Amino acid sequence: MRGLLVGRFQPFHLGHLSVVRRLRTQRPDESLLLGVGSAQASYTLDNPFTAAERQEMIVRALETERISGWTAVPIPDIHRHALWVAHVAELVPKFERVYTNNPLTRTLFERAGFEVEATPMFDRERFEGSSIRRLLREGSEGWRDGVPPAVAEYLVELKATERLRAIAPGS
Amino acid sequence: MRGLLVGRFQPFHLGHLSVVRRLRTQRPDESLLLGVGSAQASYTLDNPFTAAERQEMIVRALETERISGWTAVPIPDIHRHALWVAHVAELVPKFERVYTNNPLTRTLFERAGFEVEATPMFDRERFEGSSIRRLLREGSEGWRDGVPPAVAEYLVELKATERLRAIAPGS
Amino acid sequence: MRGLLVGRFQPFHLGHLSVVRRLRTQRPDESLLLGVGSAQASYTLDNPFTAAERQEMIVRALETERISGWTAVPIPDIHRHALWVAHVAELVPKFERVYTNNPLTRTLFERAGFEVEATPMFDRERFEGSSIRRLLREGSEGWRDGVPPAVAEYLVELKATERLRAIAPGS
Amino acid sequence: MRGLLVGRFQPFHLGHLSVVRRLRTQRPDESLLLGVGSAQASYTLDNPFTAAERQEMIVRALETERISGWTAVPIPDIHRHALWVAHVAELVPKFERVYTNNPLTRTLFERAGFEVEATPMFDRERFEGSSIRRLLREGSEGWRDGVPPAVAEYLVELKATERLRAIAPGS
Amino acid sequence: MRGLLVGRFQPFHLGHLSVVRRLRTQRPDESLLLGVGSAQASYTLDNPFTAAERQEMIVRALETERISGWTAVPIPDIHRHALWVAHVAELVPKFERVYTNNPLTRTLFERAGFEVEATPMFDRERFEGSSIRRLLREGSEGWRDGVPPAVAEYLVELKATERLRAIAPGS
Amino acid sequence: MRGLLVGRFQPFHLGHLSVVRRLRTQRPDESLLLGVGSAQASYTLDNPFTAAERQEMIVRALETERISGWTAVPIPDIHRHALWVAHVAELVPKFERVYTNNPLTRTLFERAGFEVEATPMFDRERFEGSSIRRLLREGSEGWRDGVPPAVAEYLVELKATERLRAIAPGS
Repeated sequence: MRGLLVGRFQPFHLGHLSVVRRLRTQRPDESLLLGVGSAQASYTLDNPFTAAERQEMIVRALETERISGWTAVPIPDIHRHALWVAHVAELVPKFERVYTNNPLTRTLFERAGFEVEATPMFDRERFEGSSIRRLLREGSEGWRDGVPPAVAEYLVELKATERLRAIAPGS
Repeated sequence: MRGLLVGRFQPFHLGHLSVVRRLRTQRPDESLLLGVGSAQASYTLDNPFTAAERQEMIVRALETERISGWTAVPIPDIHRHALWVAHVAELVPKFERVYTNNPLTRTLFERAGFEVEATPMFDRERFEGSSIRRLLREGSEGWRDGVPPAVAEYLVELKATERLRAIAPGS
Repeated sequence: MRGLLVGRFQPFHLGHLSVVRRLRTQRPDESLLLGVGSAQASYTLDNPFTAAERQEMIVRALETERISGWTAVPIPDIHRHALWVAHVAELVPKFERVYTNNPLTRTLFERAGFEVEATPMFDRERFEGSSIRRLLREGSEGWRDGVPPAVAEYLVELKATERLRAIAPGS
Repeated sequence: MRGLLVGRFQPFHLGHLSVVRRLRTQRPDESLLLGVGSAQASYTLDNPFTAAERQEMIVRALETERISGWTAVPIPDIHRHALWVAHVAELVPKFERVYTNNPLTRTLFERAGFEVEATPMFDRERFEGSSIRRLLREGSEGWRDGVPPAVAEYLVELKATERLRAIAPGS
Repeated sequence: MRGLLVGRFQPFHLGHLSVVRRLRTQRPDESLLLGVGSAQASYTLDNPFTAAERQEMIVRALETERISGWTAVPIPDIHRHALWVAHVAELVPKFERVYTNNPLTRTLFERAGFEVEATPMFDRERFEGSSIRRLLREGSEGWRDGVPPAVAEYLVELKATERLRAIAPGS
Repeated sequence: MRGLLVGRFQPFHLGHLSVVRRLRTQRPDESLLLGVGSAQASYTLDNPFTAAERQEMIVRALETERISGWTAVPIPDIHRHALWVAHVAELVPKFERVYTNNPLTRTLFERAGFEVEATPMFDRERFEGSSIRRLLREGSEGWRDGVPPAVAEYLVELKATERLRAIAPGS
C-alpha cells in the first residue's frame, strides 16, 4: 500500500514534518509518496524554490529525523484541473490513499474514485508556507521557528532572504 | 554526493539492474538517482509503459534484490535539447556525477560542466529495451530472459504483450 | 451562412438563452455556432465547469426550448491574443459573422477582417456569469433566477455549490 | 444516451459515411458524437485538412444524405496517451459508448471503464484515408470513388491535389 | 563582444532610448542586443503590443536617432524562471554582458555566471511603461512626453488608445 | 519595404549567402529579414545547431562579405501549420514580400494574402543543408566547399563533426 501527500513545500516546514512523522508512525506498512507539486515553478513569490531545492529540503529534514519509508516525486502542473488526477496517477508510482486538507484536491481525487483522508492537524497559523515566505522576505528571524533546523541551514545556504527580495523588491 | 543515471526503462531490464548493482557496490557513499526519462510518454512502441509503471518495475526489482540507496525520479521531455540539462538539474535533487553510455547525453552534460562516466558495460545485445519490446510484442517467451523476475511478473500483470499488439497491430 | 457566438458559458444562463433565441428567430437561415471558450479550463473560480458540462447545459437548455439550428464547439485558449482569431477560424466550421459585446473580441475579429455585430442586449446585471457563480457559491437560492430550468436542474446534479466552495473555501 | 466515434476524417470518406448511417439507423435513440481527432493538425501528409475543413466535409456529406442526430466536435491531440481518454471526456459532451476498430483506442477506453464496440465493417481497402490522400496527391481521378459527392465537390473547391503536392512535392 | 538589454518595450519609451544611446556611446565596440521579452504576448493590459509592433517601434526610434550597432531579438516567455537564462542564451546570439536594473533578472543571470551591470539611470517616474500605458488608455495627451516622436507617431497609427480601451473597457 | 526569407540555416551555406547577396543587390531599398526557423530545435540530426549558433553564422558570414541591410530573427515552431503565418507575422517586424522555393511555405503565405517570390536559384545539389550535415558527420572535408569560410571556421570551433556523431553515432 502507498499513500500520497501532495504539497508544494515552499519551503518544507514543521507542519509538513509533523504530518509525515505521524503518517509514518501510524501506518508503518504504508509507504509514503511526497508529491512535490508545481514542480516546474521557481523564483516566484509563491514558489521561490526549485523542485530540486525542495527535494533537498525534504531529504535533509527527514534524514536528520531518521524518518524512512517515503519517496519524493516532482509533479509539474498540467494547467487543466479536470485532468490533474490522471496526470498525477500516471507520473508517480501507484497509490491507494490520498492525504490532503485542501478541499479542491479532495474533490478532484474523490471524483476519480480515490480514498481521501484529512491530514493530522498541526498549528496552521505558525506553520504555513506563505507566512514563512513573508518572514523570510522581511529578513525577520522568526522564519527559523517554522522550519526544521536542517531546512533553516539550507535556506541560509540558498540565501533565501536575498532571493525573495529579488523576486519582490517592492515595499 | 549523488550520481544520476538517466534511462527510459522501457522496461527496466537486467542490463539496468546490473549497472545499478555495480554503482551501488562500487560507490556505497554516493546515493543514486534513477532519472526516468520521457516520463510523459506511454502507449507508444518506444514508450509502452507509463512513468508510474516504470517506477513500479524499479521498486519491485531493486527491493527483491535488496538494493538500497537509490531514488527514482520521473523526468518529462522538454523537446529542446539545448535546455535539457538545465531542465533535469532543476527537477531532480542536486547531483555531481552523471552515468551514461549515450553520446548525446554525454555531450549535453559535459557542455554544462558535469562530470560524466560511462556506465559499466553489460551484454548489450541481450539486454536492450528495443529487443525486449519486440519479443514482448511477438509473444515469444524470450523476453523473460531479459528482465528481472519481479519485472517479468509485473509485465504479465500489465498484459504487456496485449498492450504492445494494440499499439502496433500490423504484421 | 454561419454566425459565431463566443462565450465561456460558466454557466449557460438566461442572457445566453435570450441571445440565442433572438439570433435563431431573426436569422433563421444562418446556422449558429456556439464557441465554448476557455474549453481547457475547469474547477477554477472563473471557470468552474468543464467544456463537457457546459455543452451539456447548452444541449439541455436549447432542446427544452425546442431551439435548433445551432452547434456547440469547444475552443481551448491559445494564450496568444494576436493568434486567437486564426486559432478559432481553424478549429470551428467556416463562419461569416461574429456576435459579441466584448470590445477585445470585437477588436481582434475586426482586425482579421470579420464582420462583427453586437448581440441583442439583455438585463446584464441579473444575467451575468460572475454574479451567478457568486450566488452559487454562497448557496443562496437566487442563482436559480439566472439560469434556464434545465440548467438549474443540471447544476444541482453537479453539486455546483459544493464544487464552488471546494474551489474557493475562504470566507 | 450518446455514442462517440473518433476519427481524423482526412478526408471524410464513404467508409465513415457508411458507419455513421448504420449507427444512426440501428440506434436511433442514441445521439452520435463525431470526434474530429488531431484537430490542431493540418497541411501535413497525414493531416492535410484543418479541423474547420473536416467539419465542413461532415456537415455537407451528412446534410446531403439527410442524416441527423449527430454532432461533430474537434479534439486536439494531447501527446500523452495515458491522459487521452480523460482529455476527450472533459472536452466533448458525456457519452456512454465508444465505437472504434482501432486496437489502441479500444485499449485506452476500456482501461478507463468505457463500453467499446467495433464499428460496422466496410470495404477498408477502398475506403481508407491514406489511399484517398495518395490518389489525391497523384491527381488520379480514382479518389472520387472513395468519398461522398458533396465531399468530392468540396475537395475540388479546396484544391486538394495542389495542397497535397505542396505538402509533399517529392517524387 | 556583445551586451544584452532585456525589456518588454511596451512601448519603447524615452527611458529605453536614453539607455541605448549611452550604451552605444560608452561602449562603441560592443554590439547591443535588445531582447524583446514576453514576445508571445499582446493585446493585454501589461503587453498591449505584439513583438512585431515593438520591434517596429525600436527600428523607427533608433533609425530616427541614427543609432546603429544594435539588433532586436524577440524572446518568448518560457514560464519556468530557473530555465529562463538558458532559454535566452540559446535563442539570441552569444553575449558576454547583461544590462538590467531588475533584481530578479540580475539574480537569474548572475546565478548562471554572467556579468551583470546596472543600466544608466533615467527619470523612472516619467519614463515607465506602466504609466505610459495608463495615460494612453485614459486618452490623456501626456503619454506623448514619454516616448520618442517616431514612436508617438506609430502609436497613433496603431490606434493605441482605442486598443487599450478595448482591452480594459472598465472605469 | 521589408522582405522575409525563412530558412533553418543548418548550417548557413553558400546557397543562402548567394540568395542574400542577390536580394540585397537587386532590391537595395528593401530591408531583408532572415527568419531563423525551428529556432527551438538543436542537437538533432536535422537541426544540430542552436538558434544562437545559427545567428552567429549569419553575422560572421555577412559581415565578412560586407553585406548589410538585413536582420536575423529566431522563429520557434508552432506545430500548427494553419497558424504558422500568423505566428511569424506577429513575431517579426512587418514585411510585405516573402522569398521561398518551398511549395508549402509558398502555399501558406499565399493563402494569408502575402506576395511570394521564388528565390534566385543556386546549385542546389552542392549547397543543401542535408548534404552538408551528412558530410560533416562523416568527417569528410568536402563540407568546407559548401559553406562560407567564416562559417567553416566557426563549425570547427563548435566541433561540428563531433556533435553530429554524438547525435547520430550509428553506422
